[in-house]
Parts: sequence; C-alpha cells; structure tokens
Amino acid sequence: MAYATEKLREEKVFKDPVHRYVHVRDRVIWDLIGTKEFQRLRRIKQLGTTFLTFHGAEHSRLNHSLGVYEIVRRIVDDVFIGRSEWNESNRLLSLCAALLHDLGHGPFSHSFEKVFHLDHEQFSQQIILGNTEVNQVLSAVHPNFPKQVAEVIAKTSDEKLVVSLISSQIDADRMDYLLRDAYFTGVSYGHFDMERILRVMRPREDQVVIKKSGMHAVEDYIMSRYQMYWQVYFHPVTRSGEVVLTKILHRAKELYEQFYQFKYEPRHFYSMFKNELTLQDYLNLDEAVVLYYFQVWQEEDDPILRDLCRRFMDRHLFKYVEFDPAKEYRKFIDLSALFKKAGIDPEYYLVLDSSSDLPYDFYRPGEEEERLPIQLLMPNGEIRELSRESEIVEAISGKRRTDHKLYFPADILYDETSKKNIKRQIRQLLGIR
Amino acid sequence: MAYATEKLREEKVFKDPVHRYVHVRDRVIWDLIGTKEFQRLRRIKQLGTTFLTFHGAEHSRLNHSLGVYEIVRRIVDDVFIGRSEWNESNRLLSLCAALLHDLGHGPFSHSFEKVFHLDHEQFSQQIILGNTEVNQVLSAVHPNFPKQVAEVIAKTSDEKLVVSLISSQIDADRMDYLLRDAYFTGVSYGHFDMERILRVMRPREDQVVIKKSGMHAVEDYIMSRYQMYWQVYFHPVTRSGEVVLTKILHRAKELYEQFYQFKYEPRHFYSMFKNELTLQDYLNLDEAVVLYYFQVWQEEDDPILRDLCRRFMDRHLFKYVEFDPAKEYRKFIDLSALFKKAGIDPEYYLVLDSSSDLPYDFYRPGEEEERLPIQLLMPNGEIRELSRESEIVEAISGKRRTDHKLYFPADILYDETSKKNIKRQIRQLLGIR
Amino acid sequence: MAYATEKLREEKVFKDPVHRYVHVRDRVIWDLIGTKEFQRLRRIKQLGTTFLTFHGAEHSRLNHSLGVYEIVRRIVDDVFIGRSEWNESNRLLSLCAALLHDLGHGPFSHSFEKVFHLDHEQFSQQIILGNTEVNQVLSAVHPNFPKQVAEVIAKTSDEKLVVSLISSQIDADRMDYLLRDAYFTGVSYGHFDMERILRVMRPREDQVVIKKSGMHAVEDYIMSRYQMYWQVYFHPVTRSGEVVLTKILHRAKELYEQFYQFKYEPRHFYSMFKNELTLQDYLNLDEAVVLYYFQVWQEEDDPILRDLCRRFMDRHLFKYVEFDPAKEYRKFIDLSALFKKAGIDPEYYLVLDSSSDLPYDFYRPGEEEERLPIQLLMPNGEIRELSRESEIVEAISGKRRTDHKLYFPADILYDETSKKNIKRQIRQLLGIR
Amino acid sequence: MAYATEKLREEKVFKDPVHRYVHVRDRVIWDLIGTKEFQRLRRIKQLGTTFLTFHGAEHSRLNHSLGVYEIVRRIVDDVFIGRSEWNESNRLLSLCAALLHDLGHGPFSHSFEKVFHLDHEQFSQQIILGNTEVNQVLSAVHPNFPKQVAEVIAKTSDEKLVVSLISSQIDADRMDYLLRDAYFTGVSYGHFDMERILRVMRPREDQVVIKKSGMHAVEDYIMSRYQMYWQVYFHPVTRSGEVVLTKILHRAKELYEQFYQFKYEPRHFYSMFKNELTLQDYLNLDEAVVLYYFQVWQEEDDPILRDLCRRFMDRHLFKYVEFDPAKEYRKFIDLSALFKKAGIDPEYYLVLDSSSDLPYDFYRPGEEEERLPIQLLMPNGEIRELSRESEIVEAISGKRRTDHKLYFPADILYDETSKKNIKRQIRQLLGIR
Repeated sequence: MAYATEKLREEKVFKDPVHRYVHVRDRVIWDLIGTKEFQRLRRIKQLGTTFLTFHGAEHSRLNHSLGVYEIVRRIVDDVFIGRSEWNESNRLLSLCAALLHDLGHGPFSHSFEKVFHLDHEQFSQQIILGNTEVNQVLSAVHPNFPKQVAEVIAKTSDEKLVVSLISSQIDADRMDYLLRDAYFTGVSYGHFDMERILRVMRPREDQVVIKKSGMHAVEDYIMSRYQMYWQVYFHPVTRSGEVVLTKILHRAKELYEQFYQFKYEPRHFYSMFKNELTLQDYLNLDEAVVLYYFQVWQEEDDPILRDLCRRFMDRHLFKYVEFDPAKEYRKFIDLSALFKKAGIDPEYYLVLDSSSDLPYDFYRPGEEEERLPIQLLMPNGEIRELSRESEIVEAISGKRRTDHKLYFPADILYDETSKKNIKRQIRQLLGIR
Repeated sequence: MAYATEKLREEKVFKDPVHRYVHVRDRVIWDLIGTKEFQRLRRIKQLGTTFLTFHGAEHSRLNHSLGVYEIVRRIVDDVFIGRSEWNESNRLLSLCAALLHDLGHGPFSHSFEKVFHLDHEQFSQQIILGNTEVNQVLSAVHPNFPKQVAEVIAKTSDEKLVVSLISSQIDADRMDYLLRDAYFTGVSYGHFDMERILRVMRPREDQVVIKKSGMHAVEDYIMSRYQMYWQVYFHPVTRSGEVVLTKILHRAKELYEQFYQFKYEPRHFYSMFKNELTLQDYLNLDEAVVLYYFQVWQEEDDPILRDLCRRFMDRHLFKYVEFDPAKEYRKFIDLSALFKKAGIDPEYYLVLDSSSDLPYDFYRPGEEEERLPIQLLMPNGEIRELSRESEIVEAISGKRRTDHKLYFPADILYDETSKKNIKRQIRQLLGIR
Repeated sequence: MAYATEKLREEKVFKDPVHRYVHVRDRVIWDLIGTKEFQRLRRIKQLGTTFLTFHGAEHSRLNHSLGVYEIVRRIVDDVFIGRSEWNESNRLLSLCAALLHDLGHGPFSHSFEKVFHLDHEQFSQQIILGNTEVNQVLSAVHPNFPKQVAEVIAKTSDEKLVVSLISSQIDADRMDYLLRDAYFTGVSYGHFDMERILRVMRPREDQVVIKKSGMHAVEDYIMSRYQMYWQVYFHPVTRSGEVVLTKILHRAKELYEQFYQFKYEPRHFYSMFKNELTLQDYLNLDEAVVLYYFQVWQEEDDPILRDLCRRFMDRHLFKYVEFDPAKEYRKFIDLSALFKKAGIDPEYYLVLDSSSDLPYDFYRPGEEEERLPIQLLMPNGEIRELSRESEIVEAISGKRRTDHKLYFPADILYDETSKKNIKRQIRQLLGIR
Repeated sequence: MAYATEKLREEKVFKDPVHRYVHVRDRVIWDLIGTKEFQRLRRIKQLGTTFLTFHGAEHSRLNHSLGVYEIVRRIVDDVFIGRSEWNESNRLLSLCAALLHDLGHGPFSHSFEKVFHLDHEQFSQQIILGNTEVNQVLSAVHPNFPKQVAEVIAKTSDEKLVVSLISSQIDADRMDYLLRDAYFTGVSYGHFDMERILRVMRPREDQVVIKKSGMHAVEDYIMSRYQMYWQVYFHPVTRSGEVVLTKILHRAKELYEQFYQFKYEPRHFYSMFKNELTLQDYLNLDEAVVLYYFQVWQEEDDPILRDLCRRFMDRHLFKYVEFDPAKEYRKFIDLSALFKKAGIDPEYYLVLDSSSDLPYDFYRPGEEEERLPIQLLMPNGEIRELSRESEIVEAISGKRRTDHKLYFPADILYDETSKKNIKRQIRQLLGIR
C-alpha cells in the first residue's frame, strides 16, 4: 500500500533538547503529528503537578511522545534493520505505537483517573479506534491498522517484540521519560548511556534483549530510574500538589451532587460528574480548561472549593509529616476528630498519601502491572534474566519501597485566632511545633 | 529595619536546569515568590508561541524570573560585595527588581499588547504599587520601597547602577533568557560563558562595566544574542503562530463591537474590549484562560473566529513567502483584491509581518528603546565603549537587520473545490506552485 | 603568621573542564603550584595505561590535584565557614593536603610499585619533609607545618575531620577523580551531583558527615564509583597494557641482574634496580623518561625486552580469557609447560591478573585499607551509618567483587610457522579458536 | 579488490568524549589505526605547549585524528551516500586521508619546524609513501592507493571534493579540533552545532557546499574559530612556553655547532642538527624523547641551556608586554643593548613573538595558505560565497588581526642582587614596575 511507505520529499526535523533532533521521513508519521488529538498533548503536562516543585518541569506529553517515537525510530532504523529476527514490515506499526502510546492521557491524569474512575489506556484505544483524525490517518494505511496499533499499546498484540519496544522494563517510553524529565527538572539523576543501550539491543521473537556487553549501562539505567522515582516523581511537594488537586475535584463533584449553584458552571465537567463522559468531552478536556475552572472557582461561595483552588493556583500547598498507617491508625482517627472539632473538614484537609515503587523485578506471573523482565543475550547465544547476572540488580530486585505521608494545611493549624487549644493539640499529635 | 535583613532559618534552594540551583536566603524574596501575582507567572509562557516551532519551549516566565534573580544575587553577593563602588544598601532593591521585572507580562504579551494597546511595563508598575500581595511584602520593607523597586524596573530610578543590572545591553535579564531559551529549545546557539562575565563585572556609579579581560566572553554573548534572535525568536513558524493568534483577538474584538452573540461569552475579555481593563481583570488573565476561550470558540458560529481558533489549537498555521513591502506594495494591493474575490477575507488571512533587530549598538541619544552601551574597564582604569575595542562588535554595531514575510493559509489556496482560477492567480502572484 | 594568610593581589583562576574554574587566592597555594615537584605531576598520567583503552584519558595527576584542591576549597570556604564545629585555623592545612595528596606518585605507579616495591605514600612524605621546593614553601608557613600536612596525607593526623576530607569513602579525592575520569574518557557513568553533596556536608569532630537530605546524591555517587571501577579502571584492555608494562620492568631488572649489556643504559633505573633509590632519583623519574627508555629498548638485543617494548609502544597488547585461579590451577600449570615447549617464556607471556573492589563498606576494624564509612546526619541530630538508612547501599555493602583474567600474546599463538601443534594445544586449552 | 571493502566481523567502537563514539567497520581503517606510525601520535600533544596554560589540554594528535576520521565517516556514510554528485568509490580514500592527515606531525611541531626548517606536510608524504606500516596497509588496497591518499593530504589531488572534506575553511579537521580543543581546555567558546552542519553539507564536483538553511550554524562555527584562536591558540602564556622551548632548541643546536661537550648526548637530535634527518629518525622523535632531554639537560654545564630547560619543565616561563615592532623598533635595540650590559643574552632572553589570524576569507587567488571559501547552496540551486549572504561574516571577512608581544624573564629583571641600575632601566623601558 503506497501510503504506508510514502516518504516526505524532504526529511522534517524537530529540534529536541534531549535527542538533539527528532527525524520524520514517513508521511504517515507526519500526518499523525498534525492531528488535533496529537496536538492536544501540548496542553497536558508530562509530569502533572511536578512543576510546583521543579519549576523546569513544564514540558508537555507531546514533547515526550515525539521522544519515544525518535528512540523507536533509531532502534528499528539503525539497529534492527537487516537482522533476521526483525520483521521489517513491523516498522511502521512500531513507530505509530511509539508516537501514540500516551494519546489517551488527560489533564493531571493521576488525580482525574482516581476521582472519576477514568483509565487513560481505554481512552487511547477509543481515540485510535474512534471517529478521530488519528483514526483517519491510520485507516489510510490499512483498514485493520488502527486495531493493530491499538493492540500494541494495549499490550494485547501478538507482536510481542513490538510491544516490548514500548512496554517492558527497558522500553523506549521509560528511556525517554527518564532522560527528558531529568533534563527539564535539571536534576543530575536520570542520566544513563542510552546510545550504548540502543547499540546493544537485539530483536528476539518475544522481546527485545540486551547484549551482555551492555549490562553495566542497563544497571545504570535501573539506578537512574530508582533515583528519579524517589527524587522527582514521588517528591513530597509534588504529591502535596496532587493531594490538593484531587480534593478540588472531589469537592466540585460533591457540590454538584448536592445541587450547589456554581457561579461558573463546570460545563466541561458535567458529563464526568454524571459518569457519561464521551470521547469528545474527554478530548475537550485539557489542562488549560482545568486551570480556567480553578481560577474562576476562586470566586465561588463554597469556602472549601474556593480555598483549595486558591491553594493550588498560588502554590499554598499542604505540609506533611511521615506517617505509618499500619501503626498509627488510632492517631489518624483522633486527628480526624480534632479536625472536626476545630472546624476543619478532615475529608478535605487531612489526607494520607502513599507512594510505592519496585525498582526492578524479575517475572512474577499473575502480579498486577507485571512488566517483562530484562533479558541479556550472552556471548554464547544464551538468554539470561538480568538479575541473575548483575549483582547490583540482584541486590535490589523485587524490593518494593513504600512511603506514607500525612498532608494537612499547616497555615490553618498555626493560625491561633480561633480554636487555639484544639489546634495546639493537633500540632502536638502531628509532632510539629 | 528588621524585615529587610531577615534571613530564613535555612536557605531554600530551587533546582534550576540553567543555573543548577537558585538560592534564597532572604525572607523578603521568599515571601515575594509566594505571592499570587508572582505565582501567576507560571501560567504565562516565556516564549509565547515559540513552543509551536520548538516543542521544548514550554517554560514559563516564573522560570525565567527566578533565573534573573539568581544572576543578580550572584553579582551582588559574590562579585560586588565589599567593593567601594557598590552600595550594599542597594542589595535588596536589586534582588527585588530582578525577581519582579517581568511581573506585568500577560498571556502572549506581544499579541495582546498590539491588539489591545496594553503595556506590560505599566502593569508591572501597577502590580508593584497597587493593592496586591507583592505590594504588601514590599511595603513591609519600607513604605517607600515599592516605589523604589518600581522605578528601577521603569528605568527612571536614580540608582543607575542598579538599573543597569536589569536593563542594559548586557544585563541579567538578557543573560538569563539567552541561556534559558537555548536550554529549553535545545538549540546550540545561546551559550556563552556567563560565569566568566559575572566574574569581570565591576560596579561603577552609573552602570556595570566589564573588565577588558572579559571582552571575548562579551563578544560571544553578543553573537549568541544575534543567533537566538534570528534562529529562535524570529523563527517564521513562531511568527505564524503569533499572526494567527493576533487575528483571533482582532476578530473577537470586532465581533464584540458588532454585537455578535457569543455562544461562550468572553467574560474575561469584556473589559479589554471596552478599554476598561482593571488591574484585577488583568491579573485574572493568563494563558490557561486564553486557551480555554480558544477552545470553546472552535464551536462558535462565526466562521473566521472558529477557523482561526482551530488553526491555533491544532497548529494548522499560515504559510509564508518573503515579501518586500517597499518594492512590492502594488502586489499586496492586488493580492488583497484577489483574496476578496476568492471569498477569503484579506484582513484576517493575508498578513504582512516584520521582524527587526539591532545586534548591538553604541549609544545614540534620543532613539527609541535606547539601551546603555557596554563599557569596558581597561587595565589602566579608563572606560571605553565596547565597539571601540572589539573589531567583531564594531563590524556589526548599529547594523539593523529586518525581515518581512507575508503570511496566508496555503491549505485554502490549494483547495480547488471552489474559486479554482482565482486561487491559481493568487498562488502565482505569491510564487508558490 | 603573615605568610599563612597572605592573599594574592588578584585572584588567579585556572580554567578547568570539570569544575569550570579553579580559584587560587592564597599565596601559599600559588607558591606550591609553582614548585618543581608539583609541576612534575604534569608528566604523570592520572590513569596510567587507561589511555590505551580510552584515548581521551591522557590527563595528568596535576590536573586531578588541582581539582581535589578546588573541591576542598569550596567545602571549607563555602560550606564549613562559620560553623561552630569547624576550626577555621585548619583551613590552610586542608587546602595544602588536598593539593599535595598525590605528590608522591611516580610514573605508572601501580606497575612500578609492584615491581620495585615502592610506595607512593612514603614518597609523598619524603617530598613534603625532605629538601624540596614544596618543603620550603610549607616551612615558610610554620616550621612544623610540613609535618602537619604530611600527617594528614598519611592519615595519622589527629585532625580527623581534615583527614576525612581527603581520605574517606566520600572524600574530595574520590569525587574529583570520578568526575574527572568520566569527563576525559567520555563515559556517561561517573556523574553525580557533587554540588548537592558539597552543600549537605557538615563538619563533625571526627569526620565529615552528610545531611540525610543528601542521601540520594550519595547513593548515586556510590553507584558511579562502582560503574567506573568495572567499566573504566578495571577494563581488561587497560589491564593488558599494565601487564605488558609490568613485564617490561621485570625483564629490565632481570637483565640488569644478569649483567646484560644494554645498548641504551638505563641510568634512571639503576638505583631502583639496586634498591638504592634516592628522593632525587625518584623525582627525576617521570613518564617521559620511562617512555624514552621503552622507545630505545625497542632496539635492544634481548628479544623479550625488545618485543615487550614494541608491544607497549605500538599497542599490540596481550589478549585474555576469563580464568578462575582456584578451580583452574592445574590448567595454568599445563599451559606454562606448553608455553615453554613452544619456546614462549611463560614468566613473561602467560600472566594471571586479578582485580577486586568493594563498592562500599561499613566499618570493619582491623581490615586492611579500611576507609571511614559514610555517616548521615539525621534531622534529629543523630548520626547513622549510610547502609543502615539506604536500602540500595545496604544491598551492595561489603560485597567484594573480583575478576580474574589470563593474559597472553594471541598473535604468537596464531602464528603457525613454528610449533604449530603445540600452539594448537595451547589455544584449545585457552578456549580460543 | 577484496581488502578495500572488507568489513570487520563486528564493528569496533572507541569511546570518544567529543563525538561519543568513533565507529570502525572497515578492515583497512582498523589496520591503519594499529600501525606504529599512527600509534606514535599518542606521544604528540594536539596543542603543543597549551597545557601550560589550560591544564586540561593534554590530549594527543591520535585523539584528534580519530575524530576527523569519524566526522568524515558520518559525512560520507550518513549524508553523501546515494547522492548523485558523490562518487562512492572515493569513500575509502576520504576516510584514510582523514585519519592520516596529521601523520607527519612531530613533537611541538611549531617550534621544531621553525628551528630545524622541517615541514610536517612533507613528513606526512614520506610516511605514507615510504617504507612504513602505514604504507603497507595502504598498498594492500591498491599499489597506487598510497599516492592517492598522499595527494589528498597534500591538496594536489584531482579529487577536489575529497580534498575539501579535509582542507577548506569548513572541513572535518577544523570542526574536530575546535570542538575537541574546547572540550579538553574546558572553555565555552568552540561550540557550534556540528550535527546541523553535517546534515546540510552537499557534495559538488569541486567542493563541499552548505545548504543556505544551515548558514547560521556556519556563522556560529566561524565565530567559534575566531574565539578559539584568540582565547586559546594565541594565549600569551602558551606562546611564552613556545618561546622558551624554541630557545632551548636554538641553544642546543648552537652548542652542538660550537662542539660543546654534552653530559647527556642528544643522540636523537644529531641528524637534525646536521640537517641529515631520516624518516626513521623523525619517527623516533616524540614528545617523551624531547622531554627526556629537557630533563637531563637541566644538569648541563651551559647556564643558558640549563636555565631554559628548568624554566620549561617547572613552568617558570617568560613574562610579556605588548609591543609594536613597527613603532618601537628603536626601543628593541636599546633593550638588547641593556640586556647585554646586564649580562643577559638578548638572543635567548628578549624575544618578540607575533600571532596573526584571518577569521574568514573569501577567495584571493595567489595568496599564501589560501583555503577554499565556504560556498552556500541556495534554495534555487545557485552557489553563493558565504560572505555575500551573511552580514556577520561579511563584516569580519578578510580582516587580519595581529598581536605582537615581547617576552623576557621577569624574575631575573627583578633580582636586584646584581646590575641593579641597569635592570631598573630595562624595567622602565619595558613599562613594568
């Protein structure tokens, strides 16, 4: 089919601070980038509320999506090409899946998904298969092509090698976001020798494998990932931003359900409140729209909604203390009671937040969120799982680390113009002066 | 006065990708950063529509403002301190002016200022002197302090040395934006040895001067600036984004004046349309709000507003050709006539845009936008204007470069389903196939 | 004492690719840099034979020594200054010890020390305490000052905090060489956020401690060190260069002991051969001198010396196979016998080389080469050893990793013009085709 | 011919700090790198005495040669391949010429060439065409191949396009050394977007041309070159090192001609002193050998040779003042006379040194050292010389800049234990206190 192989008359390049240049020669890729659904990713930040902690982290998901595409392009065009284990006819499928893998993300995904029970992976499927410009482009390749792309993104495709390029424990997605998020935040973690890793990737029937000689670069990548999770992604201030944001959404929904009269009607939210969200509604929702509402809601009559919106907009976030929910359950109950007595609704102002990550894991069938382990290609042709070769990786393999924090508005608790004694009790329980 | 000199118990640092860390030890600075007027700068991009060309350029003015503050902090705390020509009591004034110098910027400043005859410098003054959180913080230093800061930013202050730190041909503002914009776009121009320049800066009564030994670093800085202007700031695609954006604003205003019934009322715009903009109205206006309207206006009945908004949101911008307004004036008239015949309103769809810059200039009294020339401090203590010492700078000094382009929607002109012959005539005149 | 506190009229700076600038304001430091013993470090490579593997690794020990000085300068002048636990009178002692800590290194230290039973630490002592320009400068500070500096470098000083700046598991020496060696080799390992680590260092009576908030940067540093050891310092090709070099020295010594008549008399080596090395002899020995002899020895009559020198100069090094000395002892005996039968002296051409490293260790009293463990300063003021807080470090703590390789001249073994069958047997035993 | 196209079973890579990796797939290239004549370049510094100013500049010519090869490899394999104007059969010729272009350089080329009237370009020819390992490898490609390579390096080849890759005003040689020297010295000048320039290079019959769209990157490159010349290559301290070195060579030659009895006979220098230098003598001469002699000569009886060698080894170089030879000729005569009166031989201790450079030039036929101007490929296919399009380049084009300095041993002049009055007169004339 001509369209699938059509090349642009002249290669297009995007200047990219992470990969230097993103190269586009395929007409299909160029057309996909031009769709309104892809351009919408410009209005969704890659790292949600992280910009409140790291002011450089203002980059969008479009930014990242182009990067993932470029990495996969280099793998298939510079490394896999001509190797017998690589099916060249999967090239375009790989590129499209890479470019579109985050297409279903909405604004501040994490919070919206939690409050409204959304799933960005399902929206990715809908956008690719539904009545969209993206679908039109993909269908022009082949009527069955949208489905193929969607299956790769959903990890249900039979093309397991292609799936592993996008979703495994060492895929283009992770490599791009680690490098990109490190670049934009400015942290020095997150760097590893991607060029080296790409050079030692080899196609195998079921997944990408890594030549043994590149093992140390992979170790470095895993350590980078570990550091990025705890230094950046789970940063307590970022999580505070998310806690406040989540509570705004909760409050707005609750008010809606209580027939509260909004001064500024949340028209863009209604279908979500009613659980009747259409694809078009979802596509209309971007971070500009959300921030618009947060701004106007600063003038609402409801004191909680108003306060939380102001906190988010002006970065007057919640403070936190370490908290062990297993051992300190009783304390939480007591604090809730005291908050109520002090006239501070604990539902919105006393929030336990937990973060948890596995730096690397070998395969554990049946577990949730299972990702393919990293396989090494030994000099003798054998395949061995990474943690059996690397002492460093073996040492940290499967060790889940979890962190719990209790968030609250310290400013209110320190304001002794009212409920002075109760607030002192609260502060004592929280262990803050 | 205690507050002016109060230090934080522990220094706060922001991770910054350009300067590595931004250090805050002064209570006043910390409080200013926490004001809502300063936090608002998070919702205004430093480079307006540049992100449409360089996808990395999504950084905000808050990002840049912290950077300018940090540069001035290093100058006064690491270089000027203890020198007899430096009045240590101007330290806080310098830091505050650096931090707040861009406070008055609104969304997509360039376009808004043009269409609505606004002036961000005036808004900076209003925010600093008006009823704002920023004013409260500054007033707590000294009742006269807001005025002093405002005068430095307005360049009317008698503290000419302080003014020159923020506004001259080699000031902290320019140094930060060149480095920062190069970093976020990923271009390799824009780098110069700022650390070296800072080390050779010396305070003099009227302005900062540069030790002769640092002249080459300054040459490099001027060349960087030149390259950034033509490679990034005046990039024709960026300007296309600006052209479309400007036309959206024009159209909305025109519709309002014609009593058009908006489906989505532009409440945030009314006072601007009416020329009755208050400070509060202005502060409520950020890029999230603007993008919200652009999104909902995609559903308006007016075909021009709808079309232009879609173009902006989906990055279907105008194409361009080189155009010499002096020589080709006649052609412009003819094209306008043909556009009308083709049913394409030339007012909105045929736009001449010009960019112009002086890479460096020695002092020319009386000219508009005059900036202080760069003065070198010679080994013998004499002061000499840069272009008299540097052959490179002398060669380019005062050479204004201007670029004119004519913008139009190529897709419409290629669509031959209607007005085929007229469109062919237009394309021929434009010199596009 | 005036000289100890004398400042240069104008600060001197060296452009340094790793720390950007090395700053010198103290007259004593400036004078030390100008001594012939310090300048000699220009003619000794920091990484010995590593340039044979990584062609960028041509940097000298002077390069590194300036770097260590600069790091300590930043610690004491930017971080420790003014803290009650820091004795400002130890400032110059710290700077001098940092600058001079590697002063006793000779050419290709590792090999020379092994063959001639030298000890660079003893030479450091002799240079500082003996009749040298360095001693003159230090004595001018105070007659007892050379002894104080020497004790810090020997780790016998009572100023344990100062010692820990130069020799602990996170000292200025290690931080500089990791960053510097990564920079010059071009590998992407070896980077960590030194600026962050410096900022969280705190003086305590016995040693430097690290604020808990910097723990992740320290983890990153430890992983960098691990990677640099296995990727760069223990690279098998580098070790091959060292094996050949060591064997040249062995051979020259043996020939001398056998009254061999050298065409080019090794005058610079005689006192070493005789175990009568004086300080002056040692100082005259640099890598230029060693390479001079290696060059002229390419023309010697002795075939082994000649061959080994050519190999080193032209980079025709030995190849290697993995080898387990514990399990394969018998094989080594057999190979030696076969080498003899083939007319290849196994003493020089069959070499077992082992490398071993501990990535990090908590304190184990009585063990050789014990270095201070890293101590964290907890928010509550308590001190805790790193591996008790960091799961990553705990996982790798105390895990010694060792690598054994067997080196041999593959070219000779493949040359079948003589002893064809024996060579085939050898190759079979070695497991090379 | 099989050898010319033979590929290695597995690509070899060298880690390179400037280009990240140097890739070798051709057997011929691999064999050339392994020759003793190429390996000798490890013992010759790329920047001569620059390491005395910038301590990082210790990198060798081998380092640079690999870089030039890699750039040409990328041009021919990534950019030229498949273009009709490119003759693929010139590929290997280009790669070999790039790798070997500096083969004839000796130790501290500049000084040796001046004193002994040598010419490194002639030695390049001799090494390639003479009885060497390099010649053997090249001859195995084709008996005429060494001559072809030699002609490209000598710029006498008819393959003008290939010549222009190695020697023009924007060739692989210049691009590599600017980037590399900037990297190793650590200066921030010298950076430009090489990747961009490579992408817009196009083959034409007579030379490489640059697409107009890359003009700004080329401007940046020219400015980088300008800055590197004046900031690094012509640095007055570097030139001081060269002045001292040149005078050592002069003195040694003079002593030889006066039948002086050297304690340490300069065997490696004899044939040079006698003007009977053979190729083998030249190849035996590297910087280790030169430094060996300088070290032993520190013990010679001749006070001038001894003193100069100590100055060079211990970096006690000459100081300098600005000097205009045209206007101040009389002063030079007077100074010489005073030096003699003070017992300081002006022949060795009063040295005028001039540096001069053209940042860029359009073509001026008949001028010495003429290099091809840079040609732009315009969108319409026309070719235009760079300075006709670029205002910046036009402004500096053909502007030669020259700098004269007078060097002398300040320490002797300040030593007032003898000839106090004459020395004062000298210092007064020199304008130093």
